Amino acid sequence: MSDPAELRRVFDGQWAEVREEARKALRRPEFGLAGDLDRDAHRQRVWELLQQLATVGHSRLGFPTRYGGLGDTGGSVASFEMLGYGDLSLMVKSGVQWGLFGGAIQALGTERHHERYLPAVMSLELPGCFAMTETGHGSDVQHLRTTATYDPQAREFVVETPHEAARKDYIGGAARDARLAVVFAQLVTTENHGVHAFLVPIRDQDGNPCPGVRIGDCGGKAGLDGVDNGRLWFDRVRIPRENLLNRYGDVAEDGTYSSPIENPGRRFFTMLGTLVRGRVSVAGGAGSATQTALAIAVRYGDVRRQFAAPGRDREVALLDYLAHQRALLPALAKTYALRFAQEDLVRTLHELQPADGLADGNAPDGVEQRELEARAAGLKAVATWHASATIQACREACGGAGYLTENRLPQLRADTDVFTTFEGDNRVLLQLVAKGLLTGYRDQLGDLDALGMVRFLADQVWDAVTERTSVLRRFGEGDLRDHEWHLALFEDREKHVLEGLAKRLRKAGEPDADAFAVFNDAQDHVLRLARVHVERVLLEAFVVPDVSDDLRELLERVRALYALSTIEADLAWFLGHGRMTPSRAKRVTSTVNELCRELRPHASFLVDGFGIPEDWLDAPIAQGEEQRRQDAMYSHDETVAVG
Amino acid sequence: MSDPAELRRVFDGQWAEVREEARKALRRPEFGLAGDLDRDAHRQRVWELLQQLATVGHSRLGFPTRYGGLGDTGGSVASFEMLGYGDLSLMVKSGVQWGLFGGAIQALGTERHHERYLPAVMSLELPGCFAMTETGHGSDVQHLRTTATYDPQAREFVVETPHEAARKDYIGGAARDARLAVVFAQLVTTENHGVHAFLVPIRDQDGNPCPGVRIGDCGGKAGLDGVDNGRLWFDRVRIPRENLLNRYGDVAEDGTYSSPIENPGRRFFTMLGTLVRGRVSVAGGAGSATQTALAIAVRYGDVRRQFAAPGRDREVALLDYLAHQRALLPALAKTYALRFAQEDLVRTLHELQPADGLADGNAPDGVEQRELEARAAGLKAVATWHASATIQACREACGGAGYLTENRLPQLRADTDVFTTFEGDNRVLLQLVAKGLLTGYRDQLGDLDALGMVRFLADQVWDAVTERTSVLRRFGEGDLRDHEWHLALFEDREKHVLEGLAKRLRKAGEPDADAFAVFNDAQDHVLRLARVHVERVLLEAFVVPDVSDDLRELLERVRALYALSTIEADLAWFLGHGRMTPSRAKRVTSTVNELCRELRPHASFLVDGFGIPEDWLDAPIAQGEEQRRQDAMYSHDETVAVG
Repeated sequence: MSDPAELRRVFDGQWAEVREEARKALRRPEFGLAGDLDRDAHRQRVWELLQQLATVGHSRLGFPTRYGGLGDTGGSVASFEMLGYGDLSLMVKSGVQWGLFGGAIQALGTERHHERYLPAVMSLELPGCFAMTETGHGSDVQHLRTTATYDPQAREFVVETPHEAARKDYIGGAARDARLAVVFAQLVTTENHGVHAFLVPIRDQDGNPCPGVRIGDCGGKAGLDGVDNGRLWFDRVRIPRENLLNRYGDVAEDGTYSSPIENPGRRFFTMLGTLVRGRVSVAGGAGSATQTALAIAVRYGDVRRQFAAPGRDREVALLDYLAHQRALLPALAKTYALRFAQEDLVRTLHELQPADGLADGNAPDGVEQRELEARAAGLKAVATWHASATIQACREACGGAGYLTENRLPQLRADTDVFTTFEGDNRVLLQLVAKGLLTGYRDQLGDLDALGMVRFLADQVWDAVTERTSVLRRFGEGDLRDHEWHLALFEDREKHVLEGLAKRLRKAGEPDADAFAVFNDAQDHVLRLARVHVERVLLEAFVVPDVSDDLRELLERVRALYALSTIEADLAWFLGHGRMTPSRAKRVTSTVNELCRELRPHASFLVDGFGIPEDWLDAPIAQGEEQRRQDAMYSHDETVAVG
Repeated sequence: MSDPAELRRVFDGQWAEVREEARKALRRPEFGLAGDLDRDAHRQRVWELLQQLATVGHSRLGFPTRYGGLGDTGGSVASFEMLGYGDLSLMVKSGVQWGLFGGAIQALGTERHHERYLPAVMSLELPGCFAMTETGHGSDVQHLRTTATYDPQAREFVVETPHEAARKDYIGGAARDARLAVVFAQLVTTENHGVHAFLVPIRDQDGNPCPGVRIGDCGGKAGLDGVDNGRLWFDRVRIPRENLLNRYGDVAEDGTYSSPIENPGRRFFTMLGTLVRGRVSVAGGAGSATQTALAIAVRYGDVRRQFAAPGRDREVALLDYLAHQRALLPALAKTYALRFAQEDLVRTLHELQPADGLADGNAPDGVEQRELEARAAGLKAVATWHASATIQACREACGGAGYLTENRLPQLRADTDVFTTFEGDNRVLLQLVAKGLLTGYRDQLGDLDALGMVRFLADQVWDAVTERTSVLRRFGEGDLRDHEWHLALFEDREKHVLEGLAKRLRKAGEPDADAFAVFNDAQDHVLRLARVHVERVLLEAFVVPDVSDDLRELLERVRALYALSTIEADLAWFLGHGRMTPSRAKRVTSTVNELCRELRPHASFLVDGFGIPEDWLDAPIAQGEEQRRQDAMYSHDETVAVG
């Protein structure tokens, strides 16, 4: 049997220390789960816990050292992820204050903003919110309608909500606690310079709305009731010129606009790119919630028994049923894959956007930054959908018990549900991923001349003829669990889907083509490209480290289950494209079943590896109570044999 | 353009009148949605509405005429379904009182119970609950642990909860309102006669627990907060001998047990079979909730716009995106298919279990009843999973707005979530379906002698050789939308999956076989058989009626979309089994896309066909408010062009 501590070290990764700190800090009783509170009480509780968090270092992790921060970007994400094992309202609320609100000031502001605001942001003396989304524009941030028009006489910006659909909507912190808002608005001088961020006071010290600011409450939500989401309307609200977060665009006193980035589109996307930590964090938080749900369901499935079976002297444990294994274990394997990919992503973020460097305005740019953004977008989409699906599977695997609040699964499901559409709608994010891949492909082809194109197309034909036989020959007969084969299949599939899509989209460039129609007709193909890409990224990230033989073998099986269950879900593609014979395809399914059977005895060990403190698994069905019930039951068995 | 009234007639089906009555009765303002209530207030509200329902005929529909009922089994289900457009807590609460509790007295009791209780059940003077499930036994009802032991001296049964896991759990109505419980327990005289149902008073007129009865509250749940689910423990509770619901088993004063059905297993399943209306109702209620969600999301997708596109003068409506169509329209098509299948199912139930006949003890038995049960199990599983998946897709399709309580989708999702595991866990139900099919198959093969078996196996080989070519020849080149082709594919697939499974399971009969292991290894195959069977049933049930040409053509497209999107989801099977060439498989996908595009302009018409009264679509985003916002927005467009 493998060593739990060794697995924990693997799972914890580079920021193990931050995680251990969090485990200690958050074990304090007041960080226990919220229980049965109404909305107001839940908001108040989260607010109080947020103040506690400001005292334990959590709030300072991601900020520059010179203002009292700890300068640890990666640590700030790891700490955020740890909050994801508890009340997710607190996690999101902390993300709003120190990630979105504080992060925007740090990344988009300059020294004057940092000096003045960051210490108070960290200490929570200055609670804020991040007012980007509007009712009418969420995904298309570039076309927000709120305006900030410069008035050179007064040296002020006038912030305005031009019509109802331009109200800021779903803004975390706006309904109750925030005093200052980072407001995204079209910066208008004599002309429109596109979306920029502005600091707009929305409440005074007494909590009353500032003049010209109207504040609404979004009211009930599916979950995250401890987060006070609200709406904001601005009626010609005047703010000083200096309240523009002027890292990427500034307005002189006389109204002259200037920016280090000429092109408005590039400027806008550079600004957004500095905020990528939000997506990285959501992907990680989704992972924590998924892990909690799996820990609960796997433990329950281990002890809950139902139906007698011939040759068994006790009723069968749920997790001994293949269907139950199928519902939970491939999801468990993917959860491991996502954890490794998340670790890579956070490491890259940490390197490219160090807290001190970001505050200095070292705009991350270039290929690496674009790749980071694409990877964050892809992982966020896949991790959050995985959370929804897995928590749901866990809920159903626990039957009626899974529907009860006391067993946490309902809250986990409801709280994480919005993750698939906030911080970027998942479908929009996947399109970003695909766009990046297409751009890379085009760059790689370069400007082919006529002869080059003929050769390129000839290669394509040759590929089509040979790929089937060669791939089948290379990989068609070996071990189904072979990691190299899985990698080759994933890479080959991605390449094929990318090339096919590029060909389809080329039509958009033809004369008289309806470019939108061409793109739209291929939208499922676009999403598919992004998905197969992320699946490949996950498999590559799942590097089994140098550990004891037992653990290595176990993790290799987990990885094989991730790979094969992913292949199984897309068997139609592998069959339809001659990558697999029907008989081998059947063996994919039977090997997934075998792996489920082999991993079943290790399932509890694998969820223990998540390192969720026992106190936090605050669900009766996860805490051995069921075991006691069952034991009690069997002492009565003799009384119930049907005569 | 087709006629909305005509579509409504098709959708309403045989019980159109009951539906219209319900639309009138439930339009009264007090039946409006619950809004933002805490649990106690919600329970109280549901309780008050339940009393209203008792006055409008709803409660009497399913009961025998001789006791004041309306004797309309099918109507009782249709009326239940109509409640599914409103507060689902009320729907479930009514189902507990008049379906489960009253239905059990009607089906399992005899005249003395009917006379004494049914009028008070209908009028709600006697609120009750249905205490079947225990913490330790839900799916395996046959092995419940609660006992009812006959005491011939006192001529009483002694009802007992032998240990903690035998407490009754998740019992709707138990926590607050029920006074009488139908308790399922092992009937013990000198020996155990298996599970029977007993009437056990649990609360007195003042609402206090009866002596020996302990009552707990399940507390918070994911949804259905207006239903008071509770737990029951019985500490040697004595009830008169006459409180046994004695239709299928009785105990004489001296303790002699008798039953019209000798075999205990058959007796038990006959008793359960009389209660099948519960599953039929859940399938229908899931349908109503699905329809509400689709109506909201389709209307929103019709007016909400995002992103400009070349050649378009306004931003693009969400529902014009292929990905959005893909998320909603195949689900809409399947919702239609399920509606037709539900109509068939209710009609069969109505014929086989007429309210008066059931009360007379005409035990439904034989092949038709078994088929009804299997069909109810299969449709319940598929309809409730479809509800979860579709409401979820609708929520995501509405983005942040879909996460707000005011837009109803969170409540719909949370309330229906338990449908997949109550009234039978879906996976267990699908195994029932498969078992029925396997039994039918075995009966059909009969007792083949050696020669017969050789012939049978030879046929199999011949089949294997020819099926590929013949099926491909017959259907491989025609119109992809051809209904006959779809039917042939669905039938052929089901037959193949069934035969393959039968062969696999035959191993369980071999000497030294581990029968459980053989069955368990094939469990995914078993579930698959049930799924492909239900998919075929849905396609067959989707009979386009004799309507105007326009409407017929529209419904045929909806049906083709159901068929092709179902085929697409299982393309790996069709490819792997030589039923389709790769190029034809690709055309399945492109034809699904085409159908989405063609149906898109009719999407709102199709959801209007559900006949959900406008007042009940109580979500701002479904009520044209968004349209007004958008219109307001475009009058401002000129101000926001980026310079």
